[in-house]
Amino acid sequence: MKDFLYSFKEKPTKATIFTILSLLALGTYSAFAQEEAGPTVADAIFTANNVWMLVATFLVFIMHLGFASLESGLTRAKNTTNILFKNVSIISIGILTYAIVGFNLMYPGDFSIGQFFGFAGFGIAAPEGAEGLIAYADGGYTYWTDFIFQAMFAATAATIVSGAVAERIKLSSFLVFATIFVAIVYTIAGSWKWGGGWLDALGFYDFAGSTLVHSVGGWGALIGAIILGPRLGKYTKSGLKPIPGHSLPLAAVGMFLLWFGWYGFNGGSVLSADPELISLVFVTTSLAAAAGVIGAMVLSWIVFKKPDLSMILNGSLAGLVGITAGADIMTPMSAVIIGFIAGLIVVASVIFFDKYAKVDDPVGAISVHLVCGIWGTLAVGIFAAEFSLITQLIGVVAYGVFTVACALILFLAIKMIMGLRVSQEEELMGLDLGEHGMMAYPDFQQIAEAGGSTMNMPSVDDYPDVSPDLSENEQ
Amino acid sequence: MKDFLYSFKEKPTKATIFTILSLLALGTYSAFAQEEAGPTVADAIFTANNVWMLVATFLVFIMHLGFASLESGLTRAKNTTNILFKNVSIISIGILTYAIVGFNLMYPGDFSIGQFFGFAGFGIAAPEGAEGLIAYADGGYTYWTDFIFQAMFAATAATIVSGAVAERIKLSSFLVFATIFVAIVYTIAGSWKWGGGWLDALGFYDFAGSTLVHSVGGWGALIGAIILGPRLGKYTKSGLKPIPGHSLPLAAVGMFLLWFGWYGFNGGSVLSADPELISLVFVTTSLAAAAGVIGAMVLSWIVFKKPDLSMILNGSLAGLVGITAGADIMTPMSAVIIGFIAGLIVVASVIFFDKYAKVDDPVGAISVHLVCGIWGTLAVGIFAAEFSLITQLIGVVAYGVFTVACALILFLAIKMIMGLRVSQEEELMGLDLGEHGMMAYPDFQQIAEAGGSTMNMPSVDDYPDVSPDLSENEQ
Amino acid sequence: MKDFLYSFKEKPTKATIFTILSLLALGTYSAFAQEEAGPTVADAIFTANNVWMLVATFLVFIMHLGFASLESGLTRAKNTTNILFKNVSIISIGILTYAIVGFNLMYPGDFSIGQFFGFAGFGIAAPEGAEGLIAYADGGYTYWTDFIFQAMFAATAATIVSGAVAERIKLSSFLVFATIFVAIVYTIAGSWKWGGGWLDALGFYDFAGSTLVHSVGGWGALIGAIILGPRLGKYTKSGLKPIPGHSLPLAAVGMFLLWFGWYGFNGGSVLSADPELISLVFVTTSLAAAAGVIGAMVLSWIVFKKPDLSMILNGSLAGLVGITAGADIMTPMSAVIIGFIAGLIVVASVIFFDKYAKVDDPVGAISVHLVCGIWGTLAVGIFAAEFSLITQLIGVVAYGVFTVACALILFLAIKMIMGLRVSQEEELMGLDLGEHGMMAYPDFQQIAEAGGSTMNMPSVDDYPDVSPDLSENEQ
Repeated sequence: MKDFLYSFKEKPTKATIFTILSLLALGTYSAFAQEEAGPTVADAIFTANNVWMLVATFLVFIMHLGFASLESGLTRAKNTTNILFKNVSIISIGILTYAIVGFNLMYPGDFSIGQFFGFAGFGIAAPEGAEGLIAYADGGYTYWTDFIFQAMFAATAATIVSGAVAERIKLSSFLVFATIFVAIVYTIAGSWKWGGGWLDALGFYDFAGSTLVHSVGGWGALIGAIILGPRLGKYTKSGLKPIPGHSLPLAAVGMFLLWFGWYGFNGGSVLSADPELISLVFVTTSLAAAAGVIGAMVLSWIVFKKPDLSMILNGSLAGLVGITAGADIMTPMSAVIIGFIAGLIVVASVIFFDKYAKVDDPVGAISVHLVCGIWGTLAVGIFAAEFSLITQLIGVVAYGVFTVACALILFLAIKMIMGLRVSQEEELMGLDLGEHGMMAYPDFQQIAEAGGSTMNMPSVDDYPDVSPDLSENEQ
Repeated sequence: MKDFLYSFKEKPTKATIFTILSLLALGTYSAFAQEEAGPTVADAIFTANNVWMLVATFLVFIMHLGFASLESGLTRAKNTTNILFKNVSIISIGILTYAIVGFNLMYPGDFSIGQFFGFAGFGIAAPEGAEGLIAYADGGYTYWTDFIFQAMFAATAATIVSGAVAERIKLSSFLVFATIFVAIVYTIAGSWKWGGGWLDALGFYDFAGSTLVHSVGGWGALIGAIILGPRLGKYTKSGLKPIPGHSLPLAAVGMFLLWFGWYGFNGGSVLSADPELISLVFVTTSLAAAAGVIGAMVLSWIVFKKPDLSMILNGSLAGLVGITAGADIMTPMSAVIIGFIAGLIVVASVIFFDKYAKVDDPVGAISVHLVCGIWGTLAVGIFAAEFSLITQLIGVVAYGVFTVACALILFLAIKMIMGLRVSQEEELMGLDLGEHGMMAYPDFQQIAEAGGSTMNMPSVDDYPDVSPDLSENEQ
Repeated sequence: MKDFLYSFKEKPTKATIFTILSLLALGTYSAFAQEEAGPTVADAIFTANNVWMLVATFLVFIMHLGFASLESGLTRAKNTTNILFKNVSIISIGILTYAIVGFNLMYPGDFSIGQFFGFAGFGIAAPEGAEGLIAYADGGYTYWTDFIFQAMFAATAATIVSGAVAERIKLSSFLVFATIFVAIVYTIAGSWKWGGGWLDALGFYDFAGSTLVHSVGGWGALIGAIILGPRLGKYTKSGLKPIPGHSLPLAAVGMFLLWFGWYGFNGGSVLSADPELISLVFVTTSLAAAAGVIGAMVLSWIVFKKPDLSMILNGSLAGLVGITAGADIMTPMSAVIIGFIAGLIVVASVIFFDKYAKVDDPVGAISVHLVCGIWGTLAVGIFAAEFSLITQLIGVVAYGVFTVACALILFLAIKMIMGLRVSQEEELMGLDLGEHGMMAYPDFQQIAEAGGSTMNMPSVDDYPDVSPDLSENEQ
């Protein structure tokens, strides 16, 4: 009956074994229920939970396309191939290193150095014994689901750095940094809270990673941007020269996909399909993102006297980062306030880093992920009575100190050993030709040089309607 | 046991309380079942239903990227920043106003003016008491899920208007219109059917909103396009000049994302994960969209003598709008017929509005959403014996009269108070520079002006393979 | 009670009838359970399974946007409209023909010619009787779900061909080929294994279609590319001239969406929401894709001395195709090895076809889908002890012989009757103007011809910050 209804294809499933065993062990089901031997209510809920967690997993996956699009869109066309290459590499490296060492560094089980560091060994393998399975079912999903959901998260931290160091970092140097940052720095830091380490014991709260993911990535971004220095032509004798992104549609696609994926990032962090919690998380996440847009719109319209698209894109991300630490505990009203303030903060922060600190961050990653990540983490201490602002602050500082130290050591060591920044010629030419010998948009380049008609895009004369004759306008 | 298996993190869940209470009340479960105290079958189904509704929610969310892409792609590059700004704003404003007033206008519970208007108060809050929870569980999902699923719908209506008024409406005027239209007009109209108002009592049927969403948006689009008048250069002394969209890939991305999201729009309108209904809805939705493509392809190929991509993109959307009113009750064959006819209609309608009515609708929003929305609503009365064509027609007319009146008042009031259309200079220059001071594609502009090699896109000479030497072709 | 909790809107559901009947038949539930009359555990699991299969369905749907984006991005701007038109058409034709004949050719129930061919009649209709419903519930989902999930797969095979014949095939000829290939060739071939035909009886294993989908499409692609011959300008007297794609961001969007959709392609092929299997499939699929990126990166970097973005994009797809045949039975380590080898193979294969075989395949479809599809199918025989390498090889050869024969006959017949390739003039001008009279990017064309300032994209002088003054750089 079990196999018939459930369509388990090859083998008796561990999930079933587990539930039966755990039910026996805990003695909550009556003897009568045990006798049935068919699938149990617990099986059904386990199945729904696990489906939800895998839905969340593919949503977090597509955030990597969101990051790739946003970063490409907000930078120049001459560096697009390079940025796409970095982003495809990061998600791949992230998943692989998480399988090799990351998962077992982040969830070590037992810590070996205080509650600061533990390592459960290389590789991944689903627990065979009943005991391990029970431990997993507690989370409402399988070992494999746990691994792959967390693996999707891991690469995020390095992607955040990618945006801030774009258009000037050597590809190979970045890949080395990203690999170590994702595999070791992010995962050890993560173990302090989500792995059950010292900050967890202290009562620090970070639901889905305002600090563990976003500010960890943001600190790396800050250090990278400082060590690299600004892009050529950004700060000149006659002052700051904005370098606009080459494709705002690509940037908007990126923002929408990130918001979309965030429903998995936050929704999956519930770690089950608990109806009330996952739906509350959808509400708070949506309201904070929307309020972030409005906050950024209001402030940037006042400051710049114009409605600024790149600011409201970052405003929505600011709201999302801001709500991430407390998405499961906030009221809708708190979510709106947190998101709105994040929208204000991100505008102020972008202006501060750009104009006053002179840290050149092409996509605003530091403002979105670091500054709003800190804001979101502290907001938990402000808006939720059950958490202490002091403890939240301790967490923020602890992650800051550790990540800054690691990023400093990594970037400086890489700089010494293999160099960090491309040559001036390469930067001017663009990294696409310099690093990859491959342009992102060769046809558009070609038509421009040819003054219009080329082999790859024929003359507009063949399509006369393109250029409306205004002199004849009826209006 | 409950907490263990279900992993409810902080508090006893309302869902559980509800089911237990409702089961007690209805007396369908034996005393034996009550004693178990673990999660029940009802919990498991509730969990699956709620997961499905949240999946539908994020699918409807991503439709807003679909709308943004489609509208950007089908308009000119000089207005792209403006269009993206509008679309990011609309979804944000839509979610926030729905939380403040919209949800309680659309689902007022009790009506205060006949069955035409009711308001359940400001803000949102999950019902704490058992009675409220039972009411919600009836729908198979939580209060939060109900709110956020419906909130994603709300913004759609204003987005439809956005396409028709593109490339000439003042940003601030549009934002004021969209806010009131989404918050008040759409929601009051919606209450007549989905909120249990007079049209619901009359037996009017509109499963997922051919009328409630699409034709409401479409009427707004029609009025907006008429009041604004056509874009400069569209209708000239020497006749109609088509103004092609600047990026068909962007338009195609938009269409695919809208079709993708429609699985949530229609699939979620089942309001549970009922296996037979949601799978039937997937089938009818897919077949209608596909048949819409074929219908539009056949007619446009005959009329224009060429296969027209923008027509088949609109054909698929026409099929989707057409099936929306009856997606849960149609047979596959009816779905194909409805979609195919919608594909024919949209081509004829686009030609009619463009050439004869001289209503300038840059993206074909009126034809897709209004005309096919009406078709889909009437099709319910034609193809489904259980519904009356007359009642369907009454619904169509009632929504038309109300929405046209509201849109007229709104647009005219805004025109008087703050102006509706940008200046001629601004329209010629493009709204991106005029309203935002920010171009969507600065690098491509720059290389064109420089005749090829620039700082942002280097010379194609560095990449000689781009221009193949045809004189040497072996073939 | 049933209706109350489950919210079945119109009619008693077949799912419920089925489960009750099947439970009665199998006698596994106690009389006590029957008396309850409410939804059962089996209902709950059935609901979750069905939700998962529909999630997988919309994921496979969005792969068609992935294919459209990848193919557009890797080809020239002058053929973009044509490629988008093909891809929108294919998914529509695929769904419709699958409803008319495809589903009943692929799953004929009884075979009429040996175990090679069977046909269950035209059209689709959910079984009304209890027997049919029981058969369906065995799969864990409804008849409608079965149909629509498989329909999404069908169109894939033709889309693969589309990439290899791009930029030179006549639109109408391609549409005729694609219709017959999807409706008849793919479905008959599919019946041999998934329909329970002779290869299934032989013990051939292909979990999600490395052979049934990818190499079937790949063989069609190979034959099409050979019969058409290379694009003008590709092979010249002075040697091979690469023709780079016009938009690498579009190509990267395509790759990411394909990877994203593959979670449904492989995850849905479990045919239930079995927690352990679907989560294992997510892990093996992710690891193989990631390892494919690394494999392609390593080999292409060595061979070309530069990191090649298009190669790592194809590397991830190679890994995905490679794991598809055995995604549910591989260990994580095997998945990494299979994916990594696929990444090596795809680079070698692209070089082989391009340089040595002189088969012009604009997007690398033959290497990704055919070569890696064969690799993945054989890998099942190598890595999984329970399957025979010989049997896997027999399956590969059988599908090759059948598909090559069908594709040859089809392409040659179409060539004779209506011609296959566009004229030289049309190919040089681009198929967008030749076939469609519609450019994909008219504004960019126009600004290039105008040397910058035009009606559709105004002068960059209005936005002086675009061109940073490097002479003044502070650095």
